[in-house]
Amino acid sequence: MSASDSRPTLALAIGDPAGISPELTAKVIALPEVRQAAKVIVIGDRRVFDEGARIAAVQEKPEAFVDLGNLDPASIQRGVASREGGASALTNYRKALSMVSEGQAQAVCFTPFNKQAMRLAHPHYDDEIRFTATEIGFDGTATEFNILEGLWNARVTSHIPLKDVSAALSGAAIVEALELTTHALAAAGFNPPRVGVAALNPHAGDGGNFGREEIDVIEPAVRAARAKGLPADGPYPADTVFVRAKAGQFDAVLTMYHDQGQIAMKLLGFDRGVTLLGGFPFPICTPAHGTAYDIAGQGKANVGAARAALLLAAKMAAVATRH
Amino acid sequence: MSASDSRPTLALAIGDPAGISPELTAKVIALPEVRQAAKVIVIGDRRVFDEGARIAAVQEKPEAFVDLGNLDPASIQRGVASREGGASALTNYRKALSMVSEGQAQAVCFTPFNKQAMRLAHPHYDDEIRFTATEIGFDGTATEFNILEGLWNARVTSHIPLKDVSAALSGAAIVEALELTTHALAAAGFNPPRVGVAALNPHAGDGGNFGREEIDVIEPAVRAARAKGLPADGPYPADTVFVRAKAGQFDAVLTMYHDQGQIAMKLLGFDRGVTLLGGFPFPICTPAHGTAYDIAGQGKANVGAARAALLLAAKMAAVATRH
Repeated sequence: MSASDSRPTLALAIGDPAGISPELTAKVIALPEVRQAAKVIVIGDRRVFDEGARIAAVQEKPEAFVDLGNLDPASIQRGVASREGGASALTNYRKALSMVSEGQAQAVCFTPFNKQAMRLAHPHYDDEIRFTATEIGFDGTATEFNILEGLWNARVTSHIPLKDVSAALSGAAIVEALELTTHALAAAGFNPPRVGVAALNPHAGDGGNFGREEIDVIEPAVRAARAKGLPADGPYPADTVFVRAKAGQFDAVLTMYHDQGQIAMKLLGFDRGVTLLGGFPFPICTPAHGTAYDIAGQGKANVGAARAALLLAAKMAAVATRH
Repeated sequence: MSASDSRPTLALAIGDPAGISPELTAKVIALPEVRQAAKVIVIGDRRVFDEGARIAAVQEKPEAFVDLGNLDPASIQRGVASREGGASALTNYRKALSMVSEGQAQAVCFTPFNKQAMRLAHPHYDDEIRFTATEIGFDGTATEFNILEGLWNARVTSHIPLKDVSAALSGAAIVEALELTTHALAAAGFNPPRVGVAALNPHAGDGGNFGREEIDVIEPAVRAARAKGLPADGPYPADTVFVRAKAGQFDAVLTMYHDQGQIAMKLLGFDRGVTLLGGFPFPICTPAHGTAYDIAGQGKANVGAARAALLLAAKMAAVATRH
């Protein structure tokens, strides 16, 4: 990277080799807008990448490549989750994380992982957030943002039973989520961001008739967040907050539980969107869709979400570099 | 109604007079497709209707009118909920119900009520379902269906705190909801209907990792329903079941709680849809949107949802008459 090159550097780990990740990796780094926005270092086995480029009919070479020589593509059966495939994705991802920690890149991206393969390779694999926190020794709070075009979704609780959501909500957790959301949005260039907060109960509790969490927990948390200068607005009934956001009233919606946001985001087309792991010292972005084993090897994987993931990572890395 | 008139008869109660209901009533009964599908008896104060027709610039007269002479439109301030307005809507609705009970009509429709006005007129007013059950002496189970074009949504629980949903779910309640849904769909001409069932927990519980209601309650209920010949399919994760339905896989989605369905339906444009009160001995249909106090009196209320409500009531009444 020359002194005159103002582009940020992204470390892009090749994901699960049995799905569309190799061809997607080759496709996305060939895009002119991606090359203009960032220098991308691809991390993985060069043979896997070259096979992906062949499938995708891509001629452009990577600008930089860290060849870990860790997987012969001939050993992988397309469309089948395997320990070897999961292990290679994990190794690639670990290397990407360490490159940012060592200052060789400013953000991490990865093409889709397969959770089953990850668990075969690493039985304690839970999700990317917990794996990443352990790997980089991070003991702060990180969270997942789901991003579709201009609309962000963050949540206070995630992979827990619905009946436990109420007890898991607290003013502190909501304020912390609003802080993370505001900072991530600011890092992506929203200035100032506008954040709508979802209620928990039907009709936002209807003044306490259908639940009291709005009165006892969420409203005080929104007031506390606003007193700290955070741009929180709500709580709004969950069935109207996304209608408002879709109409342009909010940049982000903070939801109280997993499906509250996911029902809306998936209906809006989140498979075309981006997952951002936020709260870590650097941004980590990946396409929201999965490994698409059913169409792997056919060269028809849509590069749109991977493109959006790399462009978001580049933008956040560039904003961070300017500060 | 002549012997050669095969159209069903609908009793249409004028809703809250301070909003768009009078103009909507005048507009909807003037539509040729509505006149072709049903004989509509309008119920209310003729002066309120005529004022609505003037606002809507509608020339067509009602085919039949029951003039209760119960409200001088000059006594109503547009855009303000009042006891008098609520009382007139309730009287109109009661008369519509009694006309069906007495065999003078086969289905009930109403233009939007205002809940605040209803409560001013009738302090114990809860919702249309409970009011109707009390009024007609019905002690069976009735439920609300939300219908947007070809997609129906019914729910097992409704206006209760989210934290109480798990305890309120039971196999019996789910099977009963599937029975009601199947019968209502069949009454509307779906033959056989296809019903998708939503899970409760994120990722449908992920095999018990994020909650056990799928394993312990919902899956056994779906099996029991299928054993009774009901077309139940699922449970599917809540964030994918509506994506499937939207793609045409289901005619209806049975959700476990209020917002699970409402988030999806409102995003899909449910304000253009229909609310059906099902389970009663006759169909009751109303547009899904509210009284729109902000645009009342301007003649610009969109008649689409009211049109859909009357056409659905006519279709269900006609199907019932043929049996």
